[in-house]
Amino acid sequence: MASNSFGNIFKITTWGESHGKAIGVVIDGCPAGIEISEKDINLALEKRAPGKSKFTSPRKEPDIAEIYSGVFEGITTGAPISIIIKNQDADSSKYEATKNLLKPGHANYTYLEKYGIFDYKGGGRSSARETACRVAAGAIAQKALDLYKIKISAKLFSVGDALDQQPQEELINKVKEQGDSIGGVVEFLIENSPVGLGDPIYEKLEANLAKAMISMPASKGFEIGSGFNAAKMKGSEHNDLFTNNKNNITSSNNSGGILGGISNGMDIYGRVAFKPTSSISISQDTVDIDGNKKTFKLPEGSRHDPCVAIRAVPVVKAMCQLVIIDALLMNFKVKV
Amino acid sequence: MASNSFGNIFKITTWGESHGKAIGVVIDGCPAGIEISEKDINLALEKRAPGKSKFTSPRKEPDIAEIYSGVFEGITTGAPISIIIKNQDADSSKYEATKNLLKPGHANYTYLEKYGIFDYKGGGRSSARETACRVAAGAIAQKALDLYKIKISAKLFSVGDALDQQPQEELINKVKEQGDSIGGVVEFLIENSPVGLGDPIYEKLEANLAKAMISMPASKGFEIGSGFNAAKMKGSEHNDLFTNNKNNITSSNNSGGILGGISNGMDIYGRVAFKPTSSISISQDTVDIDGNKKTFKLPEGSRHDPCVAIRAVPVVKAMCQLVIIDALLMNFKVKV
Amino acid sequence: MASNSFGNIFKITTWGESHGKAIGVVIDGCPAGIEISEKDINLALEKRAPGKSKFTSPRKEPDIAEIYSGVFEGITTGAPISIIIKNQDADSSKYEATKNLLKPGHANYTYLEKYGIFDYKGGGRSSARETACRVAAGAIAQKALDLYKIKISAKLFSVGDALDQQPQEELINKVKEQGDSIGGVVEFLIENSPVGLGDPIYEKLEANLAKAMISMPASKGFEIGSGFNAAKMKGSEHNDLFTNNKNNITSSNNSGGILGGISNGMDIYGRVAFKPTSSISISQDTVDIDGNKKTFKLPEGSRHDPCVAIRAVPVVKAMCQLVIIDALLMNFKVKV
Amino acid sequence: MASNSFGNIFKITTWGESHGKAIGVVIDGCPAGIEISEKDINLALEKRAPGKSKFTSPRKEPDIAEIYSGVFEGITTGAPISIIIKNQDADSSKYEATKNLLKPGHANYTYLEKYGIFDYKGGGRSSARETACRVAAGAIAQKALDLYKIKISAKLFSVGDALDQQPQEELINKVKEQGDSIGGVVEFLIENSPVGLGDPIYEKLEANLAKAMISMPASKGFEIGSGFNAAKMKGSEHNDLFTNNKNNITSSNNSGGILGGISNGMDIYGRVAFKPTSSISISQDTVDIDGNKKTFKLPEGSRHDPCVAIRAVPVVKAMCQLVIIDALLMNFKVKV
Repeated sequence: MASNSFGNIFKITTWGESHGKAIGVVIDGCPAGIEISEKDINLALEKRAPGKSKFTSPRKEPDIAEIYSGVFEGITTGAPISIIIKNQDADSSKYEATKNLLKPGHANYTYLEKYGIFDYKGGGRSSARETACRVAAGAIAQKALDLYKIKISAKLFSVGDALDQQPQEELINKVKEQGDSIGGVVEFLIENSPVGLGDPIYEKLEANLAKAMISMPASKGFEIGSGFNAAKMKGSEHNDLFTNNKNNITSSNNSGGILGGISNGMDIYGRVAFKPTSSISISQDTVDIDGNKKTFKLPEGSRHDPCVAIRAVPVVKAMCQLVIIDALLMNFKVKV
Repeated sequence: MASNSFGNIFKITTWGESHGKAIGVVIDGCPAGIEISEKDINLALEKRAPGKSKFTSPRKEPDIAEIYSGVFEGITTGAPISIIIKNQDADSSKYEATKNLLKPGHANYTYLEKYGIFDYKGGGRSSARETACRVAAGAIAQKALDLYKIKISAKLFSVGDALDQQPQEELINKVKEQGDSIGGVVEFLIENSPVGLGDPIYEKLEANLAKAMISMPASKGFEIGSGFNAAKMKGSEHNDLFTNNKNNITSSNNSGGILGGISNGMDIYGRVAFKPTSSISISQDTVDIDGNKKTFKLPEGSRHDPCVAIRAVPVVKAMCQLVIIDALLMNFKVKV
Repeated sequence: MASNSFGNIFKITTWGESHGKAIGVVIDGCPAGIEISEKDINLALEKRAPGKSKFTSPRKEPDIAEIYSGVFEGITTGAPISIIIKNQDADSSKYEATKNLLKPGHANYTYLEKYGIFDYKGGGRSSARETACRVAAGAIAQKALDLYKIKISAKLFSVGDALDQQPQEELINKVKEQGDSIGGVVEFLIENSPVGLGDPIYEKLEANLAKAMISMPASKGFEIGSGFNAAKMKGSEHNDLFTNNKNNITSSNNSGGILGGISNGMDIYGRVAFKPTSSISISQDTVDIDGNKKTFKLPEGSRHDPCVAIRAVPVVKAMCQLVIIDALLMNFKVKV
Repeated sequence: MASNSFGNIFKITTWGESHGKAIGVVIDGCPAGIEISEKDINLALEKRAPGKSKFTSPRKEPDIAEIYSGVFEGITTGAPISIIIKNQDADSSKYEATKNLLKPGHANYTYLEKYGIFDYKGGGRSSARETACRVAAGAIAQKALDLYKIKISAKLFSVGDALDQQPQEELINKVKEQGDSIGGVVEFLIENSPVGLGDPIYEKLEANLAKAMISMPASKGFEIGSGFNAAKMKGSEHNDLFTNNKNNITSSNNSGGILGGISNGMDIYGRVAFKPTSSISISQDTVDIDGNKKTFKLPEGSRHDPCVAIRAVPVVKAMCQLVIIDALLMNFKVKV
């Protein structure tokens, strides 16, 4: 039931629907004494914003984060940090025509069955808009990670079958013209991680990364280090050999920087698979909430992305930031 | 730090090292009134046992689970169920020769760095032996799931590149002769799930499955439904179309039975990738804890598996059982 | 660290400082399908408001709660409910003169030591203003409790030594004239509770009530049922005798309606002791943050209460509402 | 439901019934590198043991704790510590005669209603025997607290109305002869606590102490520092004045060493009220599970205490140890 929080020590709680007054996040457990500003958050939000890429949906307004609490004279106080982002583009009239339809690939059917409520406006809580709050919280987390020189990045790895940027762009253009969408894979990289992050058994670092990534809308797969490719390898190939070079503790890095759930000081990396955007302009068979056969396609003028993986890049980064700050704070005083 | 528990309402806590007196699990939050017996648990453990397959390591003794609490006259009472499995095969003398070596692919380096303790005996807590506790707890969970007719299974999907059983056996025989090991993929299937399991945003059903699976030793990747293949698909192909057939709410099942984090009543399925067993009989370069260059191979007579994915099958099943029972119990009273 | 949340299934997270832009609460896990409105919340807040009693501090503005999410057409959706209450009376200039003083009975010293930050404005997070969020959340909880006909109330039990209302008023007038303050005790009562709320051992219903009450600012003691008086009684007097009257399962109610941590269907009642308000207009010795001896008294025109227990009454009620709704939701499916 | 765990970072989970094979506790999150032995635990258990006082029930066998995991060559490893205490005195035949009776002051009625199971043997999980596990875990916690020179003690404060030891003994003798029992109060003291333990709002140090204490069987009240007496005091009397003496930061200690939920470096102290033992040898009216009127008194030869508060002393101490170690571990890295 209470499912809108992530993290243990550095814990975020998000709220807000895509078509309500605002969305927001409360960050509880951020260490005191960190310099933060709304500018830090807004820079991160800008990278997530539609319109930044020619392939993301042209929602016009910028997201502006306001800090409501937890900061005193530019410094975190240890109190919960409340960040609010107003919604500005909330014309829901275009949803009227399709309001009673079960939308293919969407959550309105399962929400209806679980909660008995059918909020037909733009996805409500299941909208990817919630991820703006993840990005805002990730930006705060990064300010703490900066003190430890931990660097986190994410980038688009593939679109459909295309690994190179040019075929990726061509592919996206093509599906966009068709009113269709295409899946993609995002890669993350955590550099300069200290040794010792993550806990054995059920709180393994990679297990928390997996949960973080698979909690993102549209994500269908997660792999750490060698990932699914490991399933095709022999032990003699896959094992990373230990060296006595403190900057490169193993000679290869199939493990993805984690052994037994605990970071070993090598780069932590992995990938997340995203399905093609469910909302497309091609007509598809469906039913309405009364079981009558209907067809559904995106209302004219709706804003949607041909490749959700592009929009997911900064969110993947943010989820890494949230997992790593929590693991870092959990790691103090595990030994005397 | 406290990382040995899994689940919220149906919560398990495991303990014990591979070479200590015993291992065990405490199950807290199991509903009262369920008929359980040690036999149920031991049947599940038997499927996990080495020696059941010609390709798993020939550890001879059977695991015998004893129930120490929480059951009165064969019925669960609502009190915590403590299950203890004695260790019988604990000759650790063979580890003496390699006791100071960092073992490729193993956690002894990261444990040493995190905890300052170097437990050289058979992997200690990082050993896959802990997974016997998961299987025992899964067997109890299944007794509760049986009341809802939920059926859970897992099977080997691939070994290396081999999808068919015969090439899989040939491949395992080959790497075994070479003293090597090979990776593999396990597939899980949850049938007859009710609609409504899982919670939005951070407690999505697939996110908890991901964490569960990636918390298993040697697992490197997770996918739900169409998984990584989704990243190559178009929206018009990938979207599952809604029908008015209550037994088959969508005409295809790329989603893997989950929409927006909530089960839709279709089969829930996915896959988990396992790396090749790290312990092999081929000599590999490493260093000792003082940084001296050494070579490591498995001591003669050690028991280890050429393909850890085979042993993982019942554990994947158990982790599904634990995720589903918890989601089921969480799902009561989410609406009035 | 993350310490601003209360509850497990019905979980609240509060944020905001007394002199910031606003305070707020996010309620996660409220069942869907409950009719709620801002009016329900504002009615509850009004009872807490200063100026409602002639003995509470004359802060003028009314608190107005705004619901930002989680409600669709007047009905809860199962999504987190974000409630925001703006701060309107935030002239902090009067705190300038005493800004570097350690205030007797206050938390500014411990916050400084813990967080390294000295927020001199009106108590920051440690201000009782945070309790408005508890009252707002309690009002929502009550809407769910109403469906089960559970009735919760709280009232002033004693002020200083005075048990009768008239001597209480006289006593408060007297200390007020002296620029002093006085302690008091608040009593709570939960009627029509079902049998079975609360869980054995560490989640006993009375243990969660104790934590809830002692988490309130200025509370120093908690007792359930016979309370401290039980320590003076004999077993033959104290034991409540079971009857076969389903409406009155025991002939007396020293237990306070709870046996072994679980409600027995009788009225649940207890008391909470509050210290006298720390902020008084009488000069008291203290030191500043550099250790220089100083004296402190309330700045002229500061708003403060002669008896904090009066203001605590609706908060005690709210904490009962939060504990009971959580216990109620936790109690589904503990048996098959 | 899952209610058998206490603590966040240093987390214990207890299991076992009074008349089963054994009881036990799993301690998860104990820092690595602490020297512990079964002797430490058994010394603590001995102080709890019946027969140590002439006024506690004459159960003969000593409790012997066995460590099953988490310790390597006498040092904690960071892995969960499993401690098992066998039950030796489990003749339950004497419960046969009264097996269907609702026992005054006991939990068998509420357990029956909640779980649908009537475990008539000696209280099952609701027996005070569970507290042996708390004492065992407290002894381990103390080994970690020793490194910080934190000293924790508890003692009997009052028995009935008697504050002096001699009238206490006379009173107990008297009620014992009458086959009756008497309540009492236990006082705890935490010396040399660092400044900064505890977290604001809902995880205040005193709130966690309150929950810990009120989670003990038979406890009915809790107070911190001045406690209920504070309700009778004026602010000018109650406020502790700050000094510039670092060893005595306030000139008095009504606060009980905690301000705003955070320790201020002064002694932390408080009291816990215990009801008289419910099990007495005087016949009392009750009903059986079918609603027939019956009388109940303790079976001949049953072991029970005339004053449960005496037995509670080491348990109060243990709960302090568990709260303080958890607060200590939570307090690392709250500021940069």
